[in-house]
Amino acid sequence: MPVISHRGAQMPPSPIRKLVPFAEAAKKRGTKVFHLNIGQPDIETPHSILQAVKDADIKVLEYSHSAGFESYRKKLVEYYKRNNIEINHNQVIVTTGGSEAIAFAIQSCMDPGDEIIIPEPFYANYNGFAVSAEVRVVPIPSTIEENFALPPIEAFEKAITPRTKAIMICNPNNPTGYLYSKEELEVLREICLKHDLFLFSDEAYREFCYDGRKHISALTLEGLEENVILMDTISKRYSACGGRIGAFVTKNQQVLDAAMKFAQARLSPPSFAQILGEAAVDLPADYFDEVHAEYNSRRDLLVKRLQAMEGVTCPMPGGAFYAMAKLPVENSDKFCQWLLEEFSHNGATVMMAPGSGFYASTGKGNNEVRLAYVLNLEDINAAMDCLEAALKAYKN
Amino acid sequence: MPVISHRGAQMPPSPIRKLVPFAEAAKKRGTKVFHLNIGQPDIETPHSILQAVKDADIKVLEYSHSAGFESYRKKLVEYYKRNNIEINHNQVIVTTGGSEAIAFAIQSCMDPGDEIIIPEPFYANYNGFAVSAEVRVVPIPSTIEENFALPPIEAFEKAITPRTKAIMICNPNNPTGYLYSKEELEVLREICLKHDLFLFSDEAYREFCYDGRKHISALTLEGLEENVILMDTISKRYSACGGRIGAFVTKNQQVLDAAMKFAQARLSPPSFAQILGEAAVDLPADYFDEVHAEYNSRRDLLVKRLQAMEGVTCPMPGGAFYAMAKLPVENSDKFCQWLLEEFSHNGATVMMAPGSGFYASTGKGNNEVRLAYVLNLEDINAAMDCLEAALKAYKN
Ligand SMILES: Cc1ncc(COP(=O)(O)O)c(C=O)c1O
Ligand SMILES: Cc1ncc(COP(=O)(O)O)c(C=O)c1O
Repeated sequence: MPVISHRGAQMPPSPIRKLVPFAEAAKKRGTKVFHLNIGQPDIETPHSILQAVKDADIKVLEYSHSAGFESYRKKLVEYYKRNNIEINHNQVIVTTGGSEAIAFAIQSCMDPGDEIIIPEPFYANYNGFAVSAEVRVVPIPSTIEENFALPPIEAFEKAITPRTKAIMICNPNNPTGYLYSKEELEVLREICLKHDLFLFSDEAYREFCYDGRKHISALTLEGLEENVILMDTISKRYSACGGRIGAFVTKNQQVLDAAMKFAQARLSPPSFAQILGEAAVDLPADYFDEVHAEYNSRRDLLVKRLQAMEGVTCPMPGGAFYAMAKLPVENSDKFCQWLLEEFSHNGATVMMAPGSGFYASTGKGNNEVRLAYVLNLEDINAAMDCLEAALKAYKN
Repeated sequence: MPVISHRGAQMPPSPIRKLVPFAEAAKKRGTKVFHLNIGQPDIETPHSILQAVKDADIKVLEYSHSAGFESYRKKLVEYYKRNNIEINHNQVIVTTGGSEAIAFAIQSCMDPGDEIIIPEPFYANYNGFAVSAEVRVVPIPSTIEENFALPPIEAFEKAITPRTKAIMICNPNNPTGYLYSKEELEVLREICLKHDLFLFSDEAYREFCYDGRKHISALTLEGLEENVILMDTISKRYSACGGRIGAFVTKNQQVLDAAMKFAQARLSPPSFAQILGEAAVDLPADYFDEVHAEYNSRRDLLVKRLQAMEGVTCPMPGGAFYAMAKLPVENSDKFCQWLLEEFSHNGATVMMAPGSGFYASTGKGNNEVRLAYVLNLEDINAAMDCLEAALKAYKN
């Protein structure tokens, strides 16, 4: 019998999904499970953009251009312009989700054995794309004690080797919710220029910034035009995760040319959701206001509730829709499993993502969890009631 | 300025697209271009399956299961059963096009430096997926003189090294149109069992078999259950290329487990086109009869016309919708470019795919072209008028 690859054997399983069987068992027992574990927004996809797909008059569902419909890329130029990002439509490759943009960035810029520095905790699937491409993730620590701010420049300097090709950030951050400041981005600019590194900037949560703060795209950093690759997606922006549309954006022509070859090999991104994405650029300017207000209240409630629990630390996140919390438990993997296997409160329990899955360094994040505030206020409150009761029960 | 990867530099550009600028220039000059160069069917996507997408009542366009909607996978089990392929829905991972199934097969089974044997000429994008994954393609020759039949067993034996992990076939074949016989598949069975190799079977054109011959899936080869990975797609089957839905199917549990991790890293396949694919399984049984009859007449006309041209060799293809022809020219790359740059006949010219792009061995296929019969009969006739006139003119 032929054996699978080392690559396949080494691929990390999704850290979020390993609890799924326990959640299913809990539901079978009749326990309600509040899902704070995944970044699947519950917000309705705007009706008008779903309608645009219905209205499309398609005779032959053809391949689109490998970089995506030109009309959509031109619309995206408008969208980016509104966000202070000046690019032209030839600098955009429409991808199959932000996921594919991440894969293209790594493959276009990195060879097997090359290293990419990522502040941890980070979006767990970066590991998967790194393993696929046989590149090494070099984590540097951001800590809950420092609210997950960008690690100091010395931490980057120490991690850089001759094999370092890139730094990857996610801004605002999944899982921490941290929103990088202009000063932090300037630090990244300096390091990338000094060491000739690519900066892969995952801006999946651009629209989700709170407390009146504005998102600053890495693509706007002066002098860094040749270094930055923006990895984008409409999944969270318009609650359109199932569409599978993202974007790979860079001003570096060599990188664009390389990425286009990867794009051509897989022929084209999905047509239906390109139509949806194109219509989305024309949503009224106030579309985000409501969404924004909703997430803002959820964040405030969730964090207030967490901070009020004994022994729990939870920095106020500046963006995205996640919060990392430190719990008074030794092993959050076990605690999260216990919540699903053994606990219930008013017939319900909570599913969270154990922190360890977001760290590349072993032993880190063991008492942390990530909570996604993708439920309505009432459910968040009920979920926090569960968690509070659970922490008390777990101690005994 | 940071530099791109060797991987990115080595990625082969799409052989079909390098003529695109010349085709565009021809159109600008007012010359009509008959596109026989790409496998984009002109057949209308069945109305009912497009309607299924319109009728879907979507509130939140969510991620699907990483393996695809369970309901769709169960439908696919029905579809495969009708095609004599017995599998269960847990042995299917719905992919983003057949393209992603190819990527998953290579990544799950092969490491950098591993070798995959592929009879050439072959679907050019296999090269791209191999370069992405840093695996080596080892071509073995099938020739136009032998109608592109499977190379003899000795050719495989000679090519096998300790790094050989898999054999890849495409059946029916793109670009040759060759349909493998039961005997040929038995040869592959024998080699794979003897040397413990995976057999990656690309069956994108399963439905397109002519002269009353039946397609035999590699998944039905007895004793080869642990070796075979079927790479499938709805792109050609239902003229649904833009949907981006395919399937990765295997009975090998280890491979499935590995592939699922790659599937989870990219979250999910596109939702809209899964709805379309699910509806497609319920198309009336006679849906393919008409499509089939159409392609059959096109094939007959195209090949008859080619065979009637002086100095042209064109084996009758048994399947798919491509034919490879040997032309009385020295360099078909130049000839194809000349057709677009300098030639016209009745105000029209022909775009074909130069043969060399389908060979991994340098110097091969230089006087061959691939023709996709994705135009109606009238256009095929007119295109053949052009080609005939062009070959006469080119000699002088
Ligand atoms: C930080 C981050 N990047 C990228 C993605 C990929 O999303 P998609 O492929 O749906 O665009 C996600 C999804 O959760 C994410 O959280
Ligand atoms: C032989 C073969 N395999 C796979 C594919 C990939 O098609 P898709 O990704 O659209 O399913 C094609 C497309 O032309 C093909 O010809």
